[in-house]
Amino acid sequence: MSETRVQPLDGGPAARVLVAGASGFAGALAAQLVWRHPRLELVGITSRGDVGTRLDRLYPRYRVPMELTELDLDSREDIDAAIVAYPHGASAPTVAALRGLGALVVDLSADFRLRDLPTYERWYGEHGAPELLEGAVYGLTEIYRDELREAELVATPGCYPTASVLALAPLAEEGLLADVVIDAKQGVSGAGRGGGDEMHYVSMDENAFAYRTEGHRHRPEIEQELEALGGGAPVTFVPHLLPLDQGELASCYVQTSEPIGKEALEALYRERFSGERFVRVLDAPPGLRDVRDSNECHIHVTVEERGRVLAFSAIDNLWKGASGQAVQNLNLMLGLDEGEGIS
Amino acid sequence: MSETRVQPLDGGPAARVLVAGASGFAGALAAQLVWRHPRLELVGITSRGDVGTRLDRLYPRYRVPMELTELDLDSREDIDAAIVAYPHGASAPTVAALRGLGALVVDLSADFRLRDLPTYERWYGEHGAPELLEGAVYGLTEIYRDELREAELVATPGCYPTASVLALAPLAEEGLLADVVIDAKQGVSGAGRGGGDEMHYVSMDENAFAYRTEGHRHRPEIEQELEALGGGAPVTFVPHLLPLDQGELASCYVQTSEPIGKEALEALYRERFSGERFVRVLDAPPGLRDVRDSNECHIHVTVEERGRVLAFSAIDNLWKGASGQAVQNLNLMLGLDEGEGIS
Amino acid sequence: MSETRVQPLDGGPAARVLVAGASGFAGALAAQLVWRHPRLELVGITSRGDVGTRLDRLYPRYRVPMELTELDLDSREDIDAAIVAYPHGASAPTVAALRGLGALVVDLSADFRLRDLPTYERWYGEHGAPELLEGAVYGLTEIYRDELREAELVATPGCYPTASVLALAPLAEEGLLADVVIDAKQGVSGAGRGGGDEMHYVSMDENAFAYRTEGHRHRPEIEQELEALGGGAPVTFVPHLLPLDQGELASCYVQTSEPIGKEALEALYRERFSGERFVRVLDAPPGLRDVRDSNECHIHVTVEERGRVLAFSAIDNLWKGASGQAVQNLNLMLGLDEGEGIS
Amino acid sequence: MSETRVQPLDGGPAARVLVAGASGFAGALAAQLVWRHPRLELVGITSRGDVGTRLDRLYPRYRVPMELTELDLDSREDIDAAIVAYPHGASAPTVAALRGLGALVVDLSADFRLRDLPTYERWYGEHGAPELLEGAVYGLTEIYRDELREAELVATPGCYPTASVLALAPLAEEGLLADVVIDAKQGVSGAGRGGGDEMHYVSMDENAFAYRTEGHRHRPEIEQELEALGGGAPVTFVPHLLPLDQGELASCYVQTSEPIGKEALEALYRERFSGERFVRVLDAPPGLRDVRDSNECHIHVTVEERGRVLAFSAIDNLWKGASGQAVQNLNLMLGLDEGEGIS
Repeated sequence: MSETRVQPLDGGPAARVLVAGASGFAGALAAQLVWRHPRLELVGITSRGDVGTRLDRLYPRYRVPMELTELDLDSREDIDAAIVAYPHGASAPTVAALRGLGALVVDLSADFRLRDLPTYERWYGEHGAPELLEGAVYGLTEIYRDELREAELVATPGCYPTASVLALAPLAEEGLLADVVIDAKQGVSGAGRGGGDEMHYVSMDENAFAYRTEGHRHRPEIEQELEALGGGAPVTFVPHLLPLDQGELASCYVQTSEPIGKEALEALYRERFSGERFVRVLDAPPGLRDVRDSNECHIHVTVEERGRVLAFSAIDNLWKGASGQAVQNLNLMLGLDEGEGIS
Repeated sequence: MSETRVQPLDGGPAARVLVAGASGFAGALAAQLVWRHPRLELVGITSRGDVGTRLDRLYPRYRVPMELTELDLDSREDIDAAIVAYPHGASAPTVAALRGLGALVVDLSADFRLRDLPTYERWYGEHGAPELLEGAVYGLTEIYRDELREAELVATPGCYPTASVLALAPLAEEGLLADVVIDAKQGVSGAGRGGGDEMHYVSMDENAFAYRTEGHRHRPEIEQELEALGGGAPVTFVPHLLPLDQGELASCYVQTSEPIGKEALEALYRERFSGERFVRVLDAPPGLRDVRDSNECHIHVTVEERGRVLAFSAIDNLWKGASGQAVQNLNLMLGLDEGEGIS
Repeated sequence: MSETRVQPLDGGPAARVLVAGASGFAGALAAQLVWRHPRLELVGITSRGDVGTRLDRLYPRYRVPMELTELDLDSREDIDAAIVAYPHGASAPTVAALRGLGALVVDLSADFRLRDLPTYERWYGEHGAPELLEGAVYGLTEIYRDELREAELVATPGCYPTASVLALAPLAEEGLLADVVIDAKQGVSGAGRGGGDEMHYVSMDENAFAYRTEGHRHRPEIEQELEALGGGAPVTFVPHLLPLDQGELASCYVQTSEPIGKEALEALYRERFSGERFVRVLDAPPGLRDVRDSNECHIHVTVEERGRVLAFSAIDNLWKGASGQAVQNLNLMLGLDEGEGIS
Repeated sequence: MSETRVQPLDGGPAARVLVAGASGFAGALAAQLVWRHPRLELVGITSRGDVGTRLDRLYPRYRVPMELTELDLDSREDIDAAIVAYPHGASAPTVAALRGLGALVVDLSADFRLRDLPTYERWYGEHGAPELLEGAVYGLTEIYRDELREAELVATPGCYPTASVLALAPLAEEGLLADVVIDAKQGVSGAGRGGGDEMHYVSMDENAFAYRTEGHRHRPEIEQELEALGGGAPVTFVPHLLPLDQGELASCYVQTSEPIGKEALEALYRERFSGERFVRVLDAPPGLRDVRDSNECHIHVTVEERGRVLAFSAIDNLWKGASGQAVQNLNLMLGLDEGEGIS
């Protein structure tokens, strides 16, 4: 596959890309982002439940005039890369098959995010391709950019870890985290298609609530990443659902291992993210409306009266929290400009 | 005024009630609750900016066919009681004047909530009637019920302290609080009428954000009440605004002074609130939709994996978080059934 | 059943009421309205899909602490009356069985609304109890009040005919209708529980659209009722769905058979509805927010520049458009005050 | 100015563009569209009320890092073209001044839309630059494309006329219109910034209503355009407000001068719009969600049972209904590809 990393001089497509699982919210957006990408060619979109339906009928606003097909890898030697948007657990075997064809893979499920197999098994059950775990790169672009340039399999984090880890990374890297509470709030698209009565318009209208309060499988993933950054801490993580479509707001409450003033804190964050085109450090708390339909992450950090550090991070759960970041990673894997097609 | 506490045997009005500041969100609801109350007579509604307007034109859904007038206390010797819904600071002088007439007063502002005058002055500026501070009773009904029966001036807490203190009271009473983070989320009605561009439909639609992150004046009030319950703790309090009308969800993250298991925790809460008709302890996180337009407070409590206690509390910010509780308190002050007119 | 029409002198329950199909949106509200009704006793709630579930778990905000059971009429000789909230077609046999027990029945389906059997069969298929058609009274209270007092089977109209016919009744009664366009707009609760992807929060959020544009089964029903009022006219009826929960707004565009001025028009409407407690004629177009959670119908009528008469009618689709009106009718059938329990 | 129509061979900016009135909803979007346009250079954004504020602080999601200034035309000889987003009436003098500098102007107000001066004066008052009326081209691109290529002053229609005239144009061109009712529904952004209490989130949440029912100034504009297309008809036009941000849905009810079948109707529309890249004729009623944040117009046409023709048209009121179409027109005026920067 190394050839695909060298894009043609004439500005033609750098890679032919398949999106597997394109009938879900994240997969459909991934298909659109590839479709409109100036350097990628969308060569197929597959689905398990909507075969035969055109994607622009299922998601008119994405305007992708292509029919969903079954995934049949025997006939797909033309694929240079794939984005896989399958549910947790279902993804691993398909990823393995695609890797077997030599395709670069960006996976949107949790299947290759946890480096520790027993932890994975505790939260998700048996793993379908444990032999690929070691080679997978965690797809939080701003943390693993160098590794992503060489990666062949990328496990793109979901919206909760993306928002949370970006909000906490500068503190973790300085070893400043002592205790962390993350109160995360997400729009309904984060719950995915389906969902039955609970995601009916009438159920969510004028509503908001916490869920999975006793232990959420994103907690070990967040802890893993904070630890890897240089200084872990116990994390209390509680997700909430809000009456809006796209958006993820992580409000992080941190006790630091040593005191830090507001100015030093802001300076730390501004410096850490100074070269990042998709991360903006704001001087006021971020709003979800301002990041909707974008790959941006808006962060605000301050110290409250009791000395706790507060870090707020807002992203679009389908973009930076899923498919936007997947394309950001794919750009890096292919040697393209990181922001191509998602700016 | 003691006569007004003895309601007539024939079930006639127990008291003639004025609502001052009835053109704001909380005051308008207070007017409606008094209007439809079987034992109260609404004898006047006043406003500072909408004099001459009928309330059912300003708030059609409340259906109160009465005109807003200026507050002219010289002519109001017919008042037995008043609910004052003025902004913080503006309330105190009016409350003093009403008390001078002998009327029982339920105040919705912060002016009589903080027992410590310097603390009040730090957050709100000069106090307009400091001599009344000592006699005021804090109107969180489930905590101060006995005192409320004898009270002549009640400072009803707003939605943030009401939801937060109810969620934490059983732990405070047991001296179990060691460290508290409150991530509070409120509907737009909590920001009040006015608000300009920021409260425009277009500004809040598909939006959510934190505000006043560095120090909120409800924090000292919450700390005061937890302390009074038997065991205070430093409180980190951060409010958020959500894209919905009425609702207040307090997500409380507590480190306890000693470990407590989930079963003991639930038992503690169920016992503490067992006789309360407006507080329900649920076995799942509460949703704002379920308490809308009611005086109920729904609480859920659990222990997450890292040992932190989680307490969630949902109320309608205009009802239990303002005017519903005001009437609940007024009922007690008048010797009426606590739930009359608000069940 | 005539005894049940004479309510006990002591103010005890006037009737024991069953709600069949209480797990749907309309049925659940009907159950709540009966539950909290001062003169009715809710003696059972049944469901076809949620047997064994408590209603206050399915619909917490209705607070009805009763378990849904299967409908077993063999054991229900205790029933004086029933509200049936089944889908069109499924309702007729159950209504017939309940009538066989001697119970008064208020049906919420379309099964007994169309007086002409072939018309019914064209739109809904075979009829399950055609022998009951003739005796059924159309439950638009403000039109058929006298008949309702004597009725044993009432076919309560849905939200579209209720809003439309009330908006047009004064003109129909005067024979003034020449041509009618009804552009009807409804909240998502009108589409009922279920609905799959199309009623997912994400599908309806920030959306609005027309549906069933080529012919809607409510059109013949509306035409039938306008004809019965004294002067029918061809009706173009197009329903739309709006991104809100409860509400039904009918915008009616009328060419009159002879010119009528704005003043005469308003006078006609004000006189027609002068004694009606649930109908209000406003001097400005009605808003859905103002009728939510109420049995009210707000009407505004005017003449636009081109001489067309405009009539706007707003109701809550679940209240006046379904269960509120069902209880209004049941009150009449039982000899109770019409507004009891729904004011 | 003719030079500016010849864009540089090297693909550099074809024109330097000023946006006047960039602090309103439409002006801000116009500024963003010019800012990100590959062939235009945004050389200034002006405001009357927000001078000194950066646009990306007022509208973060548009990400235009430029400061709003006062309009000072003395110093603006560098301007090739301007988009003016002033209120009706205020626009004409500024447009005249800009034309005096030789700049091409796209105006978003109503000031140059009505060709008949007395009609303008009746609805809007005195005209500030009547001498420019005759030379102005009506900026409904799909109708006046040829004239727009030569235009120096373009009056871009608002969302109501755009959606309505596009929905009816094929019938008007065939002389088929006999009688027209337009029930138009718009999101809150259409009401503009400001608006006070009525546009407060709490006022519009869960609400919908008609407004200006007795005569709307867009009616004569719609009638003018239908007449110009070859066959006018009396138009009844009633606007409504919906609880959503961006979107405009025109439901048109047409009596035709002679019968037309559904197939012929669809063929007429598909042929008329076959070459149009921004107009799509759908086989089902269009939804607002599908056109949001796009310059597309989705149309569906059918015949209902009573023989009336129904035409539905959905656009984003800020894009195709204002600023998107403004840029579409500016592209034509400058000899650029019509869809550049807005596809």
